[in-house]
Amino acid sequence: MSRITPPLARRLDGLQSSAIRDLLKLTARDDVIGLAGGLPDEQLMPRDRIALAAEVALADRSRLQYTESAGWGPLREVIAGRESARLGRPVPVEEVFVTHGSQQALSLLADVLLDPGALVVVEDPAYVGALQVFRAAGARIVAVPLDSEGMRVDALNDLLERGERPALVHTVSNFHNPRGVTLSSERRRELAELAQRHGFWVIEDDPYGELWFDRPSPEPVATHSPNVIRLSSASKILAPTLRAGWMVAPNAVCRGVELLKQGADLCGSALTQQITADLLADGFWLTDHVDKVRRIYGERAEALVGALRDRFGGRVVSTDAAGGMFVWVDFTDGTDAVELLPRAIDHGVAYVPGSAFAVEAGYRNSMRLCFTTSDAATLREAVDRLWNASVE
Amino acid sequence: MSRITPPLARRLDGLQSSAIRDLLKLTARDDVIGLAGGLPDEQLMPRDRIALAAEVALADRSRLQYTESAGWGPLREVIAGRESARLGRPVPVEEVFVTHGSQQALSLLADVLLDPGALVVVEDPAYVGALQVFRAAGARIVAVPLDSEGMRVDALNDLLERGERPALVHTVSNFHNPRGVTLSSERRRELAELAQRHGFWVIEDDPYGELWFDRPSPEPVATHSPNVIRLSSASKILAPTLRAGWMVAPNAVCRGVELLKQGADLCGSALTQQITADLLADGFWLTDHVDKVRRIYGERAEALVGALRDRFGGRVVSTDAAGGMFVWVDFTDGTDAVELLPRAIDHGVAYVPGSAFAVEAGYRNSMRLCFTTSDAATLREAVDRLWNASVE
Repeated sequence: MSRITPPLARRLDGLQSSAIRDLLKLTARDDVIGLAGGLPDEQLMPRDRIALAAEVALADRSRLQYTESAGWGPLREVIAGRESARLGRPVPVEEVFVTHGSQQALSLLADVLLDPGALVVVEDPAYVGALQVFRAAGARIVAVPLDSEGMRVDALNDLLERGERPALVHTVSNFHNPRGVTLSSERRRELAELAQRHGFWVIEDDPYGELWFDRPSPEPVATHSPNVIRLSSASKILAPTLRAGWMVAPNAVCRGVELLKQGADLCGSALTQQITADLLADGFWLTDHVDKVRRIYGERAEALVGALRDRFGGRVVSTDAAGGMFVWVDFTDGTDAVELLPRAIDHGVAYVPGSAFAVEAGYRNSMRLCFTTSDAATLREAVDRLWNASVE
Repeated sequence: MSRITPPLARRLDGLQSSAIRDLLKLTARDDVIGLAGGLPDEQLMPRDRIALAAEVALADRSRLQYTESAGWGPLREVIAGRESARLGRPVPVEEVFVTHGSQQALSLLADVLLDPGALVVVEDPAYVGALQVFRAAGARIVAVPLDSEGMRVDALNDLLERGERPALVHTVSNFHNPRGVTLSSERRRELAELAQRHGFWVIEDDPYGELWFDRPSPEPVATHSPNVIRLSSASKILAPTLRAGWMVAPNAVCRGVELLKQGADLCGSALTQQITADLLADGFWLTDHVDKVRRIYGERAEALVGALRDRFGGRVVSTDAAGGMFVWVDFTDGTDAVELLPRAIDHGVAYVPGSAFAVEAGYRNSMRLCFTTSDAATLREAVDRLWNASVE
């Protein structure tokens, strides 16, 4: 038998599999309405447009070959154009770097920007994929709470005034996963100002910004400071199978990431990168497509939040679901969402307890509900089941 | 202006871009015959078969979604079947892990198996992609030379007898990059025995094993010990754009890698993984396809080695090019391949000097020539140009 050598044993002990992924495995049963996942709806993904783009891409044999580590040039150009419009300044192609999903950007940035023991400030509750990366990098992690206007930048300021010196602050600026909230415009300016004054990096992790329902998301934090590294992705507006994430960052950061990318996986797929470029560059089509996703997700979010308020009344406080993929629900009556979960699954509905997103502990009276993959009627049925489980 | 924080500055200082990649940029001119690259020939890649498989894959909307971190189940099953045949034992699916090219397997394995300062033994000259990963992991690297039968396992044994205790030994077992040689069957058994006796891991990095010209590669090192982790890839037999690498490793190693893969990039592309599975499972087609690649690469290798021997006679010793993508050439007359390179480029031919692959230093009188992307006549012309440059 082969041995489990000590480093391997420690890694197996020390790392925990994503709580969400493990849960998903448990609740894949057909009779359970899944609000636990974090997946976009594959029925809304532009399958035929992707098939057409694949055919076009494969007409060029060079799309079968290795491509540049920083990403296929024309894809970087399309992204630079879009980000220039979003940021209100010309973004040069050198400041755009394509990654294998934006998760890879987080992982490579942690390697480039952090020394072991460096202080990283995250939001609490946190995006667990970021937490996992910063923990693996050996960072010291301090959490700042969120409220209805996003990260409590005043709490970050308190930390700084107490002498804490973060290397990095991570924020999911729009339609937070899991917390559902959006960082207000005023706090964006304050956060950028603190980054400038104290010389830390901000990672503005923005996979959901285009999925607004009523009004566009505020201007990116990156509008206000070159210390802000902006991440986004095609996964939520096009399809995760493209594995196309990207960052907009100062040239030195992109070059540092490029060297690491060569060791991490050499380069991305020229095929899926051309498909992504083709779809992102198809302006009229893209506008229509994203509008449709917004409209349908918006209807679902409204149905879910409406049903929650109808059914549970004052027993819960729920976010408004102004965009993105998630609603966050706090029980006001002391219901323990961790204890409720097995009963909920028995009643045919699954969610993720808030505690799965806690940086340390807490959020036992909260849950994250994903509204993307169920229609309005199913979401109302899910809320009925949840109610029945909660009064059993 | 944004600052270059100290960790970033050190990474930019400390890491070197791949010498091969930088060279490729210099020699992309049309009038230069490129023997410097390490690319398979895109003209031989099964473009139409990939297009058909893409169409089939996209008929299923779930191929647009995220997939399992360990790889799409049916792809792992196809690989398990192929590796079972290769290894002469049933390989369970749990021991197959799909990565984003086999470079990602190297990178994740370094994270899972090595503590900083751990001893890693590599071959000299080395595959630079592996060297980069082990250096980034903070490993102490010791090199063992190669000869015509591959890694000098006796030199590894000497190291062990002197009390060195490697955590890991890396070998490119078949048609070594850059050295062209194949580890003999006897040495495979010896290496596996040492791994068992001393409890180190062997990474058997085997992207080229199927590209044999006259007779099949010897049995994998992994046949002889469960301490051997076997890596391979679809890049050299199908197409790099699929970004499909894989490892065969004990379950505990695969589970350790799975946890890290979630942080690194969540998962691969369900689309390119289904395309890969489709092609690998299409047995008769695949046999024909790989036979064709073998035959054409074999003719090219023969033309290159023949021209070298005709033109340079006793001035060089060249490998036989029994498979893979590279010929390694030693000048016997003291010609310095680093000094020769600019003159060679002036004469319209590019190669990589051996010193680019040195673990410490050396191989200045050697060069690596890639024969995959030029036809026989072009290769003969390249050798003429090289001769002219060398007698200038």
